[in-house]
Amino acid sequence: MEEKVIYVPVETLRAFMYQVFHKCGVPEEDARICADVLIASDIRGIPSHGVNRLKMYYDRIKQGILSPITQFEIVKETETTAVVDGHHGMGHVIGYKSMQLAMEKARRYGMGAVAVRNSSHFGIAGYYALMAAEAGMIGLAFTNARPSVAPTFSVEPMLGTNPIAFACPTDEEFPFCFDAATSITQRGKIEVLARLGKPTPAGWVIGRDGSLATDTHAILKGIPKGEYALLPLGGPGEEMGGHKGYGLSVMVELLCAALQGGAFLKDLSGFDERGNPRPHQLGHFFMAIDIEHFVPLEDFKRTAGSILRALRAAEKAPGAERIYTAGEKAHLATVRAYERGIPLNDSVQRDLKFLRDELGITEVKLPF
Amino acid sequence: MEEKVIYVPVETLRAFMYQVFHKCGVPEEDARICADVLIASDIRGIPSHGVNRLKMYYDRIKQGILSPITQFEIVKETETTAVVDGHHGMGHVIGYKSMQLAMEKARRYGMGAVAVRNSSHFGIAGYYALMAAEAGMIGLAFTNARPSVAPTFSVEPMLGTNPIAFACPTDEEFPFCFDAATSITQRGKIEVLARLGKPTPAGWVIGRDGSLATDTHAILKGIPKGEYALLPLGGPGEEMGGHKGYGLSVMVELLCAALQGGAFLKDLSGFDERGNPRPHQLGHFFMAIDIEHFVPLEDFKRTAGSILRALRAAEKAPGAERIYTAGEKAHLATVRAYERGIPLNDSVQRDLKFLRDELGITEVKLPF
Repeated sequence: MEEKVIYVPVETLRAFMYQVFHKCGVPEEDARICADVLIASDIRGIPSHGVNRLKMYYDRIKQGILSPITQFEIVKETETTAVVDGHHGMGHVIGYKSMQLAMEKARRYGMGAVAVRNSSHFGIAGYYALMAAEAGMIGLAFTNARPSVAPTFSVEPMLGTNPIAFACPTDEEFPFCFDAATSITQRGKIEVLARLGKPTPAGWVIGRDGSLATDTHAILKGIPKGEYALLPLGGPGEEMGGHKGYGLSVMVELLCAALQGGAFLKDLSGFDERGNPRPHQLGHFFMAIDIEHFVPLEDFKRTAGSILRALRAAEKAPGAERIYTAGEKAHLATVRAYERGIPLNDSVQRDLKFLRDELGITEVKLPF
Repeated sequence: MEEKVIYVPVETLRAFMYQVFHKCGVPEEDARICADVLIASDIRGIPSHGVNRLKMYYDRIKQGILSPITQFEIVKETETTAVVDGHHGMGHVIGYKSMQLAMEKARRYGMGAVAVRNSSHFGIAGYYALMAAEAGMIGLAFTNARPSVAPTFSVEPMLGTNPIAFACPTDEEFPFCFDAATSITQRGKIEVLARLGKPTPAGWVIGRDGSLATDTHAILKGIPKGEYALLPLGGPGEEMGGHKGYGLSVMVELLCAALQGGAFLKDLSGFDERGNPRPHQLGHFFMAIDIEHFVPLEDFKRTAGSILRALRAAEKAPGAERIYTAGEKAHLATVRAYERGIPLNDSVQRDLKFLRDELGITEVKLPF
């Protein structure tokens, strides 16, 4: 199936997303944050968490399960810690303000951490970790998510893709940034396979009968009904370390739920018992570590950079072109994004046209 | 090959290990810590990091690359952070004191973290995370290690098995404890396969030619020469998420080396340029988070326990007997260890007899 991809300049897309959020009732400053988080995903080459999710946020605001006005309430606070209630507001705004709070605490005391309840989908976790890295700190961000991943030896979607993001500055032109689901993959990658008409690699997804599913269309249809579950990093069973991906996922769930007394696992589905949409009640956990409290920042950057350069210079596997370090592909994608724009496929173009017409956006011209 | 396994009571083995350390010059209190860390590994069902390593520590003290007297120097300290120089002393003592320091800071300020340089092999990372869990905190422990793991798209052993340990209290009779190498497996498990005469599963180990090695004896012979490397969690390449295990491993290396300005990667081999043994110069990173700074401890425990029970009650894969959560197998192993003792194979028995005779240990009687 051939797709007509159109490239849209970064700033056009950012301005368009700002308009969408703002016209949905998101206040000016908050809309700017939401647009910035989404465009960061597209810029970094992660199309699954960027503009292609724009209509999802619109739909949720319309459904009344996502509040465009974010009431950011600090319900408990100490020197280094805080618990925040997001009151089902915009996850991006909640994430941004929570990481800022963690960083303020870290700047003063060395470390800071914020646990969040009643939040919503906040885009890429890496965005928040990078906020700290840009300020000369180590940043960590975690979130739980609606159930889609099966525990080791189970076939039932119980855990979210529960990502771990870690970023820190280096002496290179871009920071180290690890940002990954604790499952092998996530739904977005399977959607890409569907568009390309390709089967799903055996080991990504398990069926209720315990088989490793490969029928991409059946998987996409069956996932919302719980007929398939994603597998944790390491795959099925324990032989290849599936229990490690599972354990990391549970660690994320504990950090994101138990430190704020909120919802977890199945209660994050976004539906009530009768199948009606309701807020997702997501939990997040943010941490900042101020490097200068340990070593001079320049020393840290040099050591970090030296580690990364040594790894890239390791002996390549036969046929391998290049060894990367985390954040490097995103850096290369960023350069490309500013040169040629963000590629939008048919389905995203359709969504944006819908939003433009529905919200009467005339301030920004889309090239389609 | 049949093995004659002898079961030795926990307290006999602990007392014997204490004697070995003490007679090697480790001061009384420190020897107790070393023995406690090693026996914890055997008790928890992790034979690779317990008594079977006892002779390794003895050998290193004899070689002069491990100092029996641990000079624990705090080179920098703030409210929540510290940098420690271990001066090539006993890793267990350095780890124990560092986690204590992190916990003291967390008790007062909510969080505490300690970065360590010039340390040595400290046993299981989980031991230190559990110290925090037993005190009502979240504990995290990380260490780098001698190079054995290849980056994604490389065949060269560059990174250590770089474990992540995370523990927290729950309302159950044992804490949640995740403690795992960021590689699929580690050398100890391949040694077990060698004793059983079994091949190594394809995907654990990569050869210099890029092939997935399965010849267990060839792998064990070739690993010290760098002819084989372990693969990161997720396996070779990126299809099954190998870049995620690799990224987590680099995260651990950065936390353990760049925050203390110490050695990293190849410099942790334990050999100098001419192949002579030298201190391993390992780095660690410990973190404690005081739960009461976020929510009442009892609330946290209840939420954590509820999450774990829900996971165990998920639908089992056909043929699966049970769904575990991290720390549960160790708990079951602990019960068994106190009932029947610690199983020691021929090679460990030989080591212990050697140490008994060499050090003239008469205070503790071994049953062989």
